[in-house]
Amino acid sequence: MGSDSTLFQEIHEQPDVIARFAQEGQRAVRELAASMRAADIRQIVVAARGTSDNAARYAQYLLGANNRLPVMLTTPSLFTLYQRPPIFAPDTLVLGISQSGKSPDIVSVLAEGRRQGCMTAAITNSVASPLAQQADHVVALGAGLERSIAATKTYTTQLYAVGFLSAHLAEDADRIAMLQQAPSLLRQTLALNSEVERLAERYRYMRNCVVVGRGYNYSTSFEIALKLKELTYTLAEPYSSADFLHGPVSLIEPGFPAIVVASSGVLAADMRALVQQLRGLEAELLCVSSDEAVLEAGRSRFPFPHVPDWLSPLLAVVPGQLLALYLALARDFDPDHPRGLSKVTETR
Amino acid sequence: MGSDSTLFQEIHEQPDVIARFAQEGQRAVRELAASMRAADIRQIVVAARGTSDNAARYAQYLLGANNRLPVMLTTPSLFTLYQRPPIFAPDTLVLGISQSGKSPDIVSVLAEGRRQGCMTAAITNSVASPLAQQADHVVALGAGLERSIAATKTYTTQLYAVGFLSAHLAEDADRIAMLQQAPSLLRQTLALNSEVERLAERYRYMRNCVVVGRGYNYSTSFEIALKLKELTYTLAEPYSSADFLHGPVSLIEPGFPAIVVASSGVLAADMRALVQQLRGLEAELLCVSSDEAVLEAGRSRFPFPHVPDWLSPLLAVVPGQLLALYLALARDFDPDHPRGLSKVTETR
Repeated sequence: MGSDSTLFQEIHEQPDVIARFAQEGQRAVRELAASMRAADIRQIVVAARGTSDNAARYAQYLLGANNRLPVMLTTPSLFTLYQRPPIFAPDTLVLGISQSGKSPDIVSVLAEGRRQGCMTAAITNSVASPLAQQADHVVALGAGLERSIAATKTYTTQLYAVGFLSAHLAEDADRIAMLQQAPSLLRQTLALNSEVERLAERYRYMRNCVVVGRGYNYSTSFEIALKLKELTYTLAEPYSSADFLHGPVSLIEPGFPAIVVASSGVLAADMRALVQQLRGLEAELLCVSSDEAVLEAGRSRFPFPHVPDWLSPLLAVVPGQLLALYLALARDFDPDHPRGLSKVTETR
Repeated sequence: MGSDSTLFQEIHEQPDVIARFAQEGQRAVRELAASMRAADIRQIVVAARGTSDNAARYAQYLLGANNRLPVMLTTPSLFTLYQRPPIFAPDTLVLGISQSGKSPDIVSVLAEGRRQGCMTAAITNSVASPLAQQADHVVALGAGLERSIAATKTYTTQLYAVGFLSAHLAEDADRIAMLQQAPSLLRQTLALNSEVERLAERYRYMRNCVVVGRGYNYSTSFEIALKLKELTYTLAEPYSSADFLHGPVSLIEPGFPAIVVASSGVLAADMRALVQQLRGLEAELLCVSSDEAVLEAGRSRFPFPHVPDWLSPLLAVVPGQLLALYLALARDFDPDHPRGLSKVTETR
């Protein structure tokens, strides 16, 4: 059941798609990195919406921590509706991330960056798009046509492209080698498929949940929440674990479902403390983790392979994609045609 | 009923509190603005959590549009847990916004900014706080002790301080004059009190809602959602209207409550289109607006006085504060003591 859906196919294509990116797409990333070094780029402004904005969140952490670059997620309405864009420093890269490359507001940010004389780049699945036309450097995802409304393979390929950008900027051969191993790790993660199908049943009538992550996996919590909203109409709200403790923790009552995304690494101690706190509040814990202690605390467990923290979002999102797929099916929804959405959303 | 709660008192104190800020706090803002101009500050990095982060969102739009300054909301975990902060350009202001001035992660961002040689500033209600100690410029809110767990008067005073910062940076006498009128406009807005008390009854059993705003009032949608979560345990999720159309709109089914925040101004046409789209989906519309057409579309209407778009967040949040208060009371919750929260949240 479900394996005949386009969404199932696109989720399971992901190892092959990113392997192809490593072979065919990586060169454009390396050239972008070389140009950024040559131009002494000191900060990055990113424009993105929806799923692509979650890839931008990952870029904010990865390029911040590994390359020490301030990454600003911009506010497109300043460029479009208000027509009062900020003035960027000349050593700024303006980067658009968009599957379709068609949303007018994202295109406007790149056009303004170019007008101001900044370097521009696009990470997109459509090299002929208006976004690509505004970019000095185009990184083509090469993910093939994404037919599902809910983006999956283009998201992981965006993360993968950002991972290569960071590694090539730092000329870090170890990280590049680790990225080359990602397709097989992603394949391992997908072996969870039948287990997720089984676990999803329990959440047939779940109306709400929170999705909590931090650091690199702040992006993952947003993306898992978005898939749950798009595909299952669950009111899934994403949080940084720190912001969560500054207010929304008051939502938790016995049985309230909390999806916790936690890799191993420096955040592990805090994430273990968080799951214990949530257990104390009698939350229903769904743990997406590579950390044994976090997983053990979960009522439902979604393990992914142990990798360095910075690489974990590429794997951690996959159990969330599968959960959204199988929860949609458990609810007799069509995962390929969520209500009220079309593939390209054009916002000003 | 309710008027004996501390929260009621603090909500209704707001006109006096901001009037006091205009008299006593404004000088520190003017000095900060003068120093920023003298140092030719070209971008701002803001560190904040919870309610203060919503004031930071306002700063991102206002200082972007009016002063053309890129404003980046930073990721504290890079400074604390990962200990890999980005390297800021020397012409960066690092600004902390915090009621208590005590959250260690926010303090760390300012300490790192200072270590890197950047100008630092704090907007805080506690001039003796660790945050203030890391700041070259301290803007004291002077809001008096905020005893409610849910921040109200410190939020509006933070917005007011940001408004003055933008106006003084631009040396814009008209805007300064408009800000001086804000206390009486806020008093007018609070006249809605009894009407909100009446309207709140209808939402006694509301479990979920979305709060949609854009541009300057993106911040307002976040802050209203946060008050509803903290005080009433409603799963209220905030959205930019643009992001909302990129996926979460699929959540809307007949009767689903959508709070729309819309001032008049350049966004009015888009917001009118949005409320019509939501009506088409048979959403339950709660309209917080100064625009007649938006208000008319609402099942429940929360008008605020007509002011320029940039000033509207100061007023637009107030109906949301009142709604959260009266909804808490309609549910027999204690608005002064939300479960699971304490006034100062210390996150790393």
